[in-house]
Amino acid sequence: MKQGNFAHVVYFWLKQPEHQEDRQAFEKSLSTFINNSEFIQTKHLGTPAATDRGVIDSSYTYCLLLTFENKELQDKYQVEEGHLKFIEESSKLWEKVVVYDSENILK
Amino acid sequence: MKQGNFAHVVYFWLKQPEHQEDRQAFEKSLSTFINNSEFIQTKHLGTPAATDRGVIDSSYTYCLLLTFENKELQDKYQVEEGHLKFIEESSKLWEKVVVYDSENILK
Repeated sequence: MKQGNFAHVVYFWLKQPEHQEDRQAFEKSLSTFINNSEFIQTKHLGTPAATDRGVIDSSYTYCLLLTFENKELQDKYQVEEGHLKFIEESSKLWEKVVVYDSENILK
Repeated sequence: MKQGNFAHVVYFWLKQPEHQEDRQAFEKSLSTFINNSEFIQTKHLGTPAATDRGVIDSSYTYCLLLTFENKELQDKYQVEEGHLKFIEESSKLWEKVVVYDSENILK
């Protein structure tokens, strides 16, 4: 499926990234949500790759990389029931979240 | 085209993001490179979207979001001639770069 023009990228730092139970709970809660979202175009849930250069930040626990056809569909995703449920279930597991939203300018 | 399992995300902060000439030079140099890379699977070159919540970082100038089929192809991209030319042409334009590499864990 062609990726959407709106990219929503979220980095999560779990409080206890070494705790397998926390990781499993987070992954289950998030994947259930994104596999059932009506609005997501393409999705990637990643963990730091085995790359190592000075400019690379691999301190995060998970990277969620979603694309949407446009900003309006991303706005709907923000208030989707599954999204709110995921936050309710999982926000206790993370200590920090950083989001980067961007609109594609490539022709 | 299906996105690859390896995501390479780069945030660029230009020294003079308000200078249209710098932006045009950067965009031309980068898009020439990524439109001709042998190894990229999917690509997105974005600028900050019109979203505004506390967790959103919109301080960057450009977000480059690439996927590759696997880490080996991303390694080849790192030393591709066009990549080295882009860095040579454009690194003077940015003051900061942060990279996040991640491997997909979604089934």
